[in-house]
Amino acid sequence: MIPTFIEKDAAAVHARLSKLYPEGSRTTKVLYDAQKYSLLAGGKRIRPVLVMETCRMLGGDVRVALDYGAAVEMVHTYSLIHDDLPCMDDDDLRRGRPTNHKVFGEDIAILAGDGLLTDAFATILCCPYATAQSRADAALALSQGAGSYGMVKGQVIDMFGETHALTPEELLELHRGKTGALIEASVRLGCHAAELTRDDQRIEAIVTYAQNIGLAFQVIDDILDCTQSAEVLGKSVGSDAKDGKTTFMTFYDVQGARAYARELTDRAISAIRTLPECDRLVELAEYLVQRDY
Amino acid sequence: MIPTFIEKDAAAVHARLSKLYPEGSRTTKVLYDAQKYSLLAGGKRIRPVLVMETCRMLGGDVRVALDYGAAVEMVHTYSLIHDDLPCMDDDDLRRGRPTNHKVFGEDIAILAGDGLLTDAFATILCCPYATAQSRADAALALSQGAGSYGMVKGQVIDMFGETHALTPEELLELHRGKTGALIEASVRLGCHAAELTRDDQRIEAIVTYAQNIGLAFQVIDDILDCTQSAEVLGKSVGSDAKDGKTTFMTFYDVQGARAYARELTDRAISAIRTLPECDRLVELAEYLVQRDY
Repeated sequence: MIPTFIEKDAAAVHARLSKLYPEGSRTTKVLYDAQKYSLLAGGKRIRPVLVMETCRMLGGDVRVALDYGAAVEMVHTYSLIHDDLPCMDDDDLRRGRPTNHKVFGEDIAILAGDGLLTDAFATILCCPYATAQSRADAALALSQGAGSYGMVKGQVIDMFGETHALTPEELLELHRGKTGALIEASVRLGCHAAELTRDDQRIEAIVTYAQNIGLAFQVIDDILDCTQSAEVLGKSVGSDAKDGKTTFMTFYDVQGARAYARELTDRAISAIRTLPECDRLVELAEYLVQRDY
Repeated sequence: MIPTFIEKDAAAVHARLSKLYPEGSRTTKVLYDAQKYSLLAGGKRIRPVLVMETCRMLGGDVRVALDYGAAVEMVHTYSLIHDDLPCMDDDDLRRGRPTNHKVFGEDIAILAGDGLLTDAFATILCCPYATAQSRADAALALSQGAGSYGMVKGQVIDMFGETHALTPEELLELHRGKTGALIEASVRLGCHAAELTRDDQRIEAIVTYAQNIGLAFQVIDDILDCTQSAEVLGKSVGSDAKDGKTTFMTFYDVQGARAYARELTDRAISAIRTLPECDRLVELAEYLVQRDY
């Protein structure tokens, strides 16, 4: 069961995202169509929900969190489009539909992703309800989470893992980058939406929460990849095991992996337990560790 | 003859860029190597020179302009890496060396570009000498120049032009996006480096300058593409005409194109003539219109 507040936040983000990108002319329509195709394809919208609920917990303006959350989802969407390319993971199916490059071609898929990534920063920096300090802090957190020491690094380690066995430390570094960094950025953006400055001590606790749910999220993904059907997940499954790629299932059996995800979730929850109004973030962590798709 | 101040600025930018990106581990070395390969390959560094000289003209802190200029060059470099990909312009040669994907593979080339684009924002937003307002304004200008209504749009129109004849208006829109938008962003970043706010009237004059030299730059590029050798330019030539692509040479002969570039340069110069200390920007415009490589 998805908690109601997640569904409400996700619907608000979807509405915000659907306002982006015009019809376009005969020369540009394909770009904006490709961007909307992937942006409005659904998905759990976990990252913007994290931005919004972190901001709400801290008493911030949720209109700011909605813009910042839309920006994080734009970056997440670009990363999926590029990851699915033939020279990367070469996936044909995403969220139950053909991947972006299958519909629009590789050139447009790359450019649609480049545009989404770039426009995400403008979405933060144009937010009319936020101070310059908040916008600068938020854009920096997004850049650091998504860049060459965060998400991009994770994807590079993932490509390396296509042809090499990874050590447990390298697997952790992969996921701290590939999924963890943007999840951490999401809570940071929620903090900056609530006008916390970068040295506020509450950020550290919330980041510890994010790092642990991020890792738990990936452990669950690895479990589902080898136990669930493609129909339920809406994407290709079992490809990691087939390719001999290192995953958490290389080091754990299903029961061990579930216990590890539980332990990470407990660590996440205990990190924010002392913050007032933390109930929704706790509920979100529980939902993520118990999900079956 | 390259004016001395351009060579000095370019050397300072090169030194700044060479501080980016570490050695890396066995999993990440290929990413950082790919980024440094293209970032430090040389090039005229016109965009960062524009940032620095605009800031200097306005009496701003050139240390800020150096960081902002490095960011623009990172975005320019990402755009070259992605444009050269097989599914885009499919170029093997760039600045006299094999293109990024030829050396590092398509997957790493895409990720190196994604990382450079993302890290450019952090380079602006981490600048220790700039106010939050300056950093937020500069990052916004970069995002708007590089994104789906600027450079990315230009590249999409360019891809459309591979298979369609463009109207003169579409050709102008292509170049206003593909090269013009980042050149405009460069002077905006120079203005924000000097702490001009977005409503300062001087920005309008300097942007008019940038728009006109940007278009002149492209007209000269089109002339050189059909009159110069690959050896001199360090890249493939004559490919536009060969592919039947619309260029300025579709609508002008060499003499007419040179006259058009001259007219654009005159418009650029007259836009900034009333600003004190405009000499270097004038000299830069003259250099760009007279260059033969």
